[in-house]
Amino acid sequence: MTDGTTQADLPGAAGRRGPSADPAPVRPSHGVLRPLGLAQVRIDGGFWGARQQVNAVATLAHCESWMERVGWLSNFDRVTDGTTGPDRPGWPFSDSEVYKLLEALCWETARSASPAAEAAIGRLTARIARAQDPDGYLNTCYGHGDQPPRYSDLEGGHELYNTGHLLQAATARLRTRGADELVEIGRRAAEHVCRTFGAHGRAAICGHPEIELGLVEFGRALGEDRYVDQARLFLDRRGHGTLRDIPLGRGYFQDDVPIRQAEVWRGHAVRALYLSAAAVDVAVDRGDDGLLAAVRRQWRRTVARRTFITGGMGSRHQDEGFGDDWELPPDRAYCETCAGVASIMVSWRLFLATGDTRHTDLIERTLYNVVATSPSGDGTAFFYANPLHQRLPGPPADGTQVSPRAEAGTRAAWFDVSCCPTNLARTLASLAGYVATSDDDGLQIHQYLPGTVRVTLPGDQRVAVRVVTDYPADGTVEVHVTATPERPWTLSLRVPAWAGGAWLVVDGQVRPAEPGQVGVRRRWRTGDVVRLALPVGPRLTWPDPRIDAVRGCVAVERGPEVLCVESRDLAAPQLLSTMEVDPAVLPVQAGDAVHVRARFAPVPSGDDWPYTSAAGEPADRGDWADVPLRPYHSWARRGPSGMRIWLPAVRRG
Amino acid sequence: MTDGTTQADLPGAAGRRGPSADPAPVRPSHGVLRPLGLAQVRIDGGFWGARQQVNAVATLAHCESWMERVGWLSNFDRVTDGTTGPDRPGWPFSDSEVYKLLEALCWETARSASPAAEAAIGRLTARIARAQDPDGYLNTCYGHGDQPPRYSDLEGGHELYNTGHLLQAATARLRTRGADELVEIGRRAAEHVCRTFGAHGRAAICGHPEIELGLVEFGRALGEDRYVDQARLFLDRRGHGTLRDIPLGRGYFQDDVPIRQAEVWRGHAVRALYLSAAAVDVAVDRGDDGLLAAVRRQWRRTVARRTFITGGMGSRHQDEGFGDDWELPPDRAYCETCAGVASIMVSWRLFLATGDTRHTDLIERTLYNVVATSPSGDGTAFFYANPLHQRLPGPPADGTQVSPRAEAGTRAAWFDVSCCPTNLARTLASLAGYVATSDDDGLQIHQYLPGTVRVTLPGDQRVAVRVVTDYPADGTVEVHVTATPERPWTLSLRVPAWAGGAWLVVDGQVRPAEPGQVGVRRRWRTGDVVRLALPVGPRLTWPDPRIDAVRGCVAVERGPEVLCVESRDLAAPQLLSTMEVDPAVLPVQAGDAVHVRARFAPVPSGDDWPYTSAAGEPADRGDWADVPLRPYHSWARRGPSGMRIWLPAVRRG
Repeated sequence: MTDGTTQADLPGAAGRRGPSADPAPVRPSHGVLRPLGLAQVRIDGGFWGARQQVNAVATLAHCESWMERVGWLSNFDRVTDGTTGPDRPGWPFSDSEVYKLLEALCWETARSASPAAEAAIGRLTARIARAQDPDGYLNTCYGHGDQPPRYSDLEGGHELYNTGHLLQAATARLRTRGADELVEIGRRAAEHVCRTFGAHGRAAICGHPEIELGLVEFGRALGEDRYVDQARLFLDRRGHGTLRDIPLGRGYFQDDVPIRQAEVWRGHAVRALYLSAAAVDVAVDRGDDGLLAAVRRQWRRTVARRTFITGGMGSRHQDEGFGDDWELPPDRAYCETCAGVASIMVSWRLFLATGDTRHTDLIERTLYNVVATSPSGDGTAFFYANPLHQRLPGPPADGTQVSPRAEAGTRAAWFDVSCCPTNLARTLASLAGYVATSDDDGLQIHQYLPGTVRVTLPGDQRVAVRVVTDYPADGTVEVHVTATPERPWTLSLRVPAWAGGAWLVVDGQVRPAEPGQVGVRRRWRTGDVVRLALPVGPRLTWPDPRIDAVRGCVAVERGPEVLCVESRDLAAPQLLSTMEVDPAVLPVQAGDAVHVRARFAPVPSGDDWPYTSAAGEPADRGDWADVPLRPYHSWARRGPSGMRIWLPAVRRG
Repeated sequence: MTDGTTQADLPGAAGRRGPSADPAPVRPSHGVLRPLGLAQVRIDGGFWGARQQVNAVATLAHCESWMERVGWLSNFDRVTDGTTGPDRPGWPFSDSEVYKLLEALCWETARSASPAAEAAIGRLTARIARAQDPDGYLNTCYGHGDQPPRYSDLEGGHELYNTGHLLQAATARLRTRGADELVEIGRRAAEHVCRTFGAHGRAAICGHPEIELGLVEFGRALGEDRYVDQARLFLDRRGHGTLRDIPLGRGYFQDDVPIRQAEVWRGHAVRALYLSAAAVDVAVDRGDDGLLAAVRRQWRRTVARRTFITGGMGSRHQDEGFGDDWELPPDRAYCETCAGVASIMVSWRLFLATGDTRHTDLIERTLYNVVATSPSGDGTAFFYANPLHQRLPGPPADGTQVSPRAEAGTRAAWFDVSCCPTNLARTLASLAGYVATSDDDGLQIHQYLPGTVRVTLPGDQRVAVRVVTDYPADGTVEVHVTATPERPWTLSLRVPAWAGGAWLVVDGQVRPAEPGQVGVRRRWRTGDVVRLALPVGPRLTWPDPRIDAVRGCVAVERGPEVLCVESRDLAAPQLLSTMEVDPAVLPVQAGDAVHVRARFAPVPSGDDWPYTSAAGEPADRGDWADVPLRPYHSWARRGPSGMRIWLPAVRRG
């Protein structure tokens, strides 16, 4: 299969390709729906436009500057000048942060034509290029000087993981700018991987899936089918005990059960999700319905039993992993930001393959409650873990220090393991690629944000719409038709599962819009307006009784946003632990907060044995008062704070 | 202080000492109460006598045989013959397992005069002796061949931790048999520690407290005050960032805050508890009331806010550590068996210092619900972690394999990190040392088990009693006076905090016995019987409402035993997740089980989003039925099973 040695040695073999007409992170060869990319979808302001702007002007430079400061960038220089060794700074996976930043910068050039992003790409690419070995191997932690040899620790070494991220960056570059040095670096690295681990090479896999994702998409972008085959090889080898056992067990890196046989996601969440995203890619490109069905089955059970109300995934700190079914503790919810990003990657791929709006519903939930939660308002500090309950405020923010820990209750400028900032950056920069799709019959809009969507339907028939909305603050979404062919086509809009009672106005006619996808097929005229009204008023949400950790509690949601109470809005953080809300009094919007009726028992002062024959109801349960709730994604933005999403509900007879 | 170099080089310097008249693990120089040891307290059968017997005939040999099999014993031979290296089997702390086994064997010789135990002591001591360096250093992981140098990784190397356990073994040997080769090995090791880390030596500490415990007790046993001073030095150095920071933070090894200033236990539970036990020892021996008060404060707050109903400590798997206040998840409760052992060590020392029965109450709770839970009935398999909720049965037991993990839901024969079996073994063998105390005025009994207690009061006045009881199956405890002086003395009995409504019969007279310590002072006659009746009928226990993870649940206790429901007694394990009990129907004893009224909703079959606008109450909540509960310590003894202690309680208006 991999007779590409000669080809790999030809510099510039990928140089014939120009940029994609519509760059997007995911371009399946088949599927129910075709994704629209950054050329066809423009986001203009609003909730997400503001965050994209902060990402562009602050986060990208912040990441580059921190990686310079902590030495992860100069690791490449050290390889180049032969001074590297086993004591280089950073973890084995720190190279991947540079590649994720590169990927983010590439999408940013397509989003905003930013000269600063283009310049940064040039700077970073030059340093990386010099560190690549003549045979395509590129890694700053292995294989140079006194470092351990290449691929000597496949369980923990992350070499192929790093390469996968390099390929994703190269894909972004190829699609947004066309073939250049970065693309060529990627091509040489991909060839090296195929030679080394191909059908006639070493039958091994990497402890952290990611190479599979990079290979498929780079293969799609280059039209290089062998890369997709190589990804499939890696997938097929996994789950057979190919890696050595570790104390956390082979489930940690999904080498316990073949992906086709697994029933649910388990082990390290990001690993499980990257692997599944790649599996969907391979299944779609190879027409492998069994593989696709396996991932759908795993998605469904995991979303039903191992996912937090925020869309967050990962219940355990120990292994950054999924818990057992129904093990969903709000206080120790890990919900790594990267797992949120990865969940969106899987769901988007499944949605493109199936058109099932449960996937786009989960994407929306995860965007508003994980992706939007992690960064600070100024884009220079981040949550790594996203718990649903913080009993006491975290420490004051310190923007000058590397946080050694994923958990803190305070957003940190940088982490010892700093995977999340660059993952956020690439997601925000490429967000337009997850908004809309088309098929032969029309246009589908899945996420609501102000902007424009253009698409050319078969027969070169151009459609353009402008979306006007203040969503999610307001539930009204207007779609203005600004260009349309003569022939009829269908405009489809997603109605989220929570939006019972939504309605649609077309041409002055009101009709109910059931959750799912609502389509309007007609002969459109320029100036036509479709108005979708989603009921974003606050609502109570109850957990499945099998989720033991939140028994007797209720949450409040508002549109796609999960709300929380912050201890900053209470007299003392400890009152978070003695509060109860009255679910018979419906929450109401009041100014920029939602108010619930709650009471707070006085905080007991003693330190006695906490298990007693009394039913534990304090004599003084406090007076009823209105308490403000705010979007979870905004918590601790006003400063360190306690917080809880799940609110103990008073018992009524 | 440490001018002992010359002394250390004199072999046999400790050889003058014979055994203690009444060997016990803890012998404070001061205190409100004096502990009685294995010569004065005899346990004859019953709940604990049976477990001691299993320990003697099965567990001790089991531990020796596994340590031979996995190479932890031959690690000593490899040092002796110069063939060891950095790749020796076992973790850096595996030497300590050999020492803990030795300690257990020593107590066993005092308990049963077992020739097998004596022979094992000889075998093990001979192999250890040859591995000791001429200057007293003794470690199989550092300092020999190509191994890393001595004390090159104080954060993780566990060298002083190992030595601490060696000193505890040497103490047990000295007290039970008198000075011999093992005692001399210990003395040379202690001198080495004092020379290396004394006031004029390296101002360092070990990442895992334990050396402090070993030094104090060995110093007490030998009358060597410098060892107590060295322990105090280690204690005083801790909490100032003496160790390097690690990703888990310095709180992990209690180097974040000086022990005198800390408010609560935090970080790795066993570390925190060993450190605090040693702090009580030093405080008592040096009259350091401030230090004693600090540990009492930490005990009180930790017991009130960070302790499970079982007495188990440690909420987190990630660091085997304490959680935040009120973070007590039953499913992820770590409750390491060793933390239970260590908690008893702290509580016993605090009790001897203060006479506060809250400490002996916690000891009882921990004995019945952690220490008794870990071993299998035949003493050859063990729980490492002791969760309070297991949703699905663990895998079948496999007595031939080393378990790589602390968590499984099934007792394992041996662990990759196998600290718990030997810790159990030494605790069970020395259990008589935690049962009774004396003061100038009489005798106090704290734990109820069939056996005899003898003590000589001042003036050579001999007291002896026989305890007759089937506790905890039955709540009646009879104390028969079998020897008494003429003058009056006080017999005191602990009434557990849960035992409201207890009564005492003395000489035919019935009187109420309030929780705490009930004393009877009189002129006794041989043949007098005191009968204490403790109400051990099943009772409902409710959690503090701040313990979020068990909101809306109730537990059932019976005497000192926490009860649980096992899925083996249900139609399907999943029913554990849909059950609710009716707390208005009081639990009743029925045969060998306690029955509660419970109903089980059918297990839902769908895999839908689990957070809905419905209050989550299933339409079909099942029919009421009686369900058996059994002691938590017996769970999974009949085979793998799901289990839960905290039972969802039906809401009633």
